Amino acid sequence: MDLDLRCNIVQCRKALNEGRACVTTCSHIFCVDCANTSFTLALVCPACETSLTENDDIVFADLNPSEDYKSSALSGLRPDTIMEICSRALSFWTYQTTQENCFQEMLYRGLEDKYSELEKQVQVLIRDSESEVTTLRAKVQALQKDMELEKRKTHDLKEQLQEKGGQLSKLQVR
Amino acid sequence: MDLDLRCNIVQCRKALNEGRACVTTCSHIFCVDCANTSFTLALVCPACETSLTENDDIVFADLNPSEDYKSSALSGLRPDTIMEICSRALSFWTYQTTQENCFQEMLYRGLEDKYSELEKQVQVLIRDSESEVTTLRAKVQALQKDMELEKRKTHDLKEQLQEKGGQLSKLQVR
Amino acid sequence: MDLDLRCNIVQCRKALNEGRACVTTCSHIFCVDCANTSFTLALVCPACETSLTENDDIVFADLNPSEDYKSSALSGLRPDTIMEICSRALSFWTYQTTQENCFQEMLYRGLEDKYSELEKQVQVLIRDSESEVTTLRAKVQALQKDMELEKRKTHDLKEQLQEKGGQLSKLQVR
Amino acid sequence: MDLDLRCNIVQCRKALNEGRACVTTCSHIFCVDCANTSFTLALVCPACETSLTENDDIVFADLNPSEDYKSSALSGLRPDTIMEICSRALSFWTYQTTQENCFQEMLYRGLEDKYSELEKQVQVLIRDSESEVTTLRAKVQALQKDMELEKRKTHDLKEQLQEKGGQLSKLQVR
Repeated sequence: MDLDLRCNIVQCRKALNEGRACVTTCSHIFCVDCANTSFTLALVCPACETSLTENDDIVFADLNPSEDYKSSALSGLRPDTIMEICSRALSFWTYQTTQENCFQEMLYRGLEDKYSELEKQVQVLIRDSESEVTTLRAKVQALQKDMELEKRKTHDLKEQLQEKGGQLSKLQVR
Repeated sequence: MDLDLRCNIVQCRKALNEGRACVTTCSHIFCVDCANTSFTLALVCPACETSLTENDDIVFADLNPSEDYKSSALSGLRPDTIMEICSRALSFWTYQTTQENCFQEMLYRGLEDKYSELEKQVQVLIRDSESEVTTLRAKVQALQKDMELEKRKTHDLKEQLQEKGGQLSKLQVR
Repeated sequence: MDLDLRCNIVQCRKALNEGRACVTTCSHIFCVDCANTSFTLALVCPACETSLTENDDIVFADLNPSEDYKSSALSGLRPDTIMEICSRALSFWTYQTTQENCFQEMLYRGLEDKYSELEKQVQVLIRDSESEVTTLRAKVQALQKDMELEKRKTHDLKEQLQEKGGQLSKLQVR
Repeated sequence: MDLDLRCNIVQCRKALNEGRACVTTCSHIFCVDCANTSFTLALVCPACETSLTENDDIVFADLNPSEDYKSSALSGLRPDTIMEICSRALSFWTYQTTQENCFQEMLYRGLEDKYSELEKQVQVLIRDSESEVTTLRAKVQALQKDMELEKRKTHDLKEQLQEKGGQLSKLQVR
C-alpha cells in the first residue's frame, strides 16, 4: 500500500520492497548490487559523496523483518531512545518519499518541456508545410493559367493556320 | 521539507501547509473552503462518498499546532493508545502521499499518452503533408511537361503558319 | 495492563483509568474534581505552582478515546509533528510513572524507618522489662532469704523461751 | 530521568542503565552475566520458562546506542513496520515498568505484613512482661506482709523472753 523506496542510483532506480537494501546515515538507500559495486570502490555515498567510514554508517537492512526481529529490535531501550530511533527512521522514509516526489515532478516537467518542444516543432512543420503547399498550389495555378493562355494561343494559331490553309487552297485552285 | 498534502477535490488541489484543513475518518483531507461547500450540502465525503455522521468523523485540524497544543494533545493517555493514534495519523499521511504519488503518475502517464498521440498526429501530418506536396509537385511537373508540349505545339503551329504565310505571299505576288 | 496514572494531589491519588482527567503543560494530571476545585481558585498548578494561563495549558482529556477520535486526532499533520506530539505524550507518561515509582519508594522507605523505629522500641521495652523483672526477682530472693533468717530467729527465740519456761517452772516448784 | 529496568533474576535485580543487556521475545530482560549463566545451560527463559530457540528470540542490546546506530537502525523500513517495532519496544518497557511496580508493591505489602506481625509480638511481649511484673510485685508484697508478721512474732517472743528472764532473776536472787 505504501510507496516503494527506489535505489538512489539514477541509472538503477530498482523498487526496494523485498529482500535487503543498503541504507546510509546520510539518508540514502541502494539496492544490494549497486551498494556492493559502489562501496567496494570507496566508502563514499554514490548519491551525495558523504564519507561513510564510521560503524553503522552503511547498514544492510532486511526490508521485511521477521516477527521476532520486530519484537526484539528495540526492546530494552528507554522510551525516549525508542522514539528518537523511530523518528529518524520516519524522517528517512519521508526524505526518500519527498526526493522521489521531486524526481517524479522533474520527470513530469521534463516531459512537459519535451511536449511543448514537440508542439512548437509541429507548428513550424505545419507552417513550413503550408507554406510549401501554398507555393506549389500557386505554381500549379500559375501553370494552369499559363497553360490556358498557351492553349488559347494554340487554338488561335490553329484557327489562323486553318484560315491561311483556306486562302491558300482558294488561290491554288484558281 | 516534507511533502505538502493537497485538497482531495481534484478541481482544487490546494497545497495544505498552513492554517487549517478538514480531515475525515475515511482518510481524506480538504481545504476549509471545499469542506464548507461540501459538508453544508451533505455529511458525505466528496472524495469517496462515505457517510460521515459520527462525532469526530469530520475534524478541522490546525496544520501548525502551537507548542502548548503539541505538549498537551495526547498527555494522560496510555502508551498503547498514544501509539495507536500516532500510527493512524502516520497511515493517513502515507495514504495521502501514496495517493498523491499515484495522481502524479496518472498525470505523467496522461501526458505520456498525449505526447505519443501528438507524435502520431505529427507523423500523420508529415505523411499527409508529404503526400500533398508530392501530389502537387507531380502536378506541377505534369503541367510543366504539358506546357512544354503545348509550347512545342505552339512553336510548330507558328512555323506552319509562317510557312503558309510565305506560300500565300508568293502566290499573291504573282 | 499498563500502570494507572494517579491524581497528583497527594491527599487524593485517585487512579485515573476511565472517564476524563485534567492534564497540564507542566506534566501534571488531576482527577476532574481536584482540577475543578483547584483551577476555580487560580490558574496555577497545585503540584508545582507553574502559572497556567495560556490556551492548552490545562486540558481535559478523555482517557478512553473513541475509535473515531483515535483516527482523526492527529490526521493531516506532518510526520515530524505527529512524532513530536507522540514523544511528548510518552514523556508525560514516563514522567508520571517515574514520579509514581519515586512515591512508592518514598512510602517504602517511610515504612522501613517506622519498622526499624518499632524494632528499637521493642529492644528498649524488652531491656526495661527484663531489668524490672530482674530487680523484682532479686527483691523476692532477698526477701525470702530475710524471711528464712527471721524464721530461724523466731525458732531460736521459741526454743529459748521454752528453756526459760522450764527453768522457771523448776524454781517455782521448789 | 526515566526508570531503570532491572535484571529479571530476582536474586540479581541489577539496574540496567548502561552497557549491554539481554532481551527476549517473551518480554524479559537480564544483565549480561545472568543471561550468560542461564542461556549456556538451556535456551529457556529463566523468568517465564518460554523456549527461546528461534533467531532473534534472545538479543543482546546496547542500552546507550550511538547516534549512528540510532540513525540507521530502522532506516529503509516502511512507516507501518517502523511503528510496529516502536510499539512493541514501548510495550516491552511498559510491561517491565508495570512488573517492577508490582514487585515494589509486593515488597511494600511484605513489609506491611512484617510490621503488623512485629506490632502483635510487641503487644504479646508487653502483656507477658506486665503479667510477670504484676505477679512478682504481688509476691514481693506478700513476702513483705509475711515478714512484717514474722518480725512482730519475733518482737513478741523477745518481749516474752525478757519477761521470763526478769521473773527468773527475781527467783534466783531470793
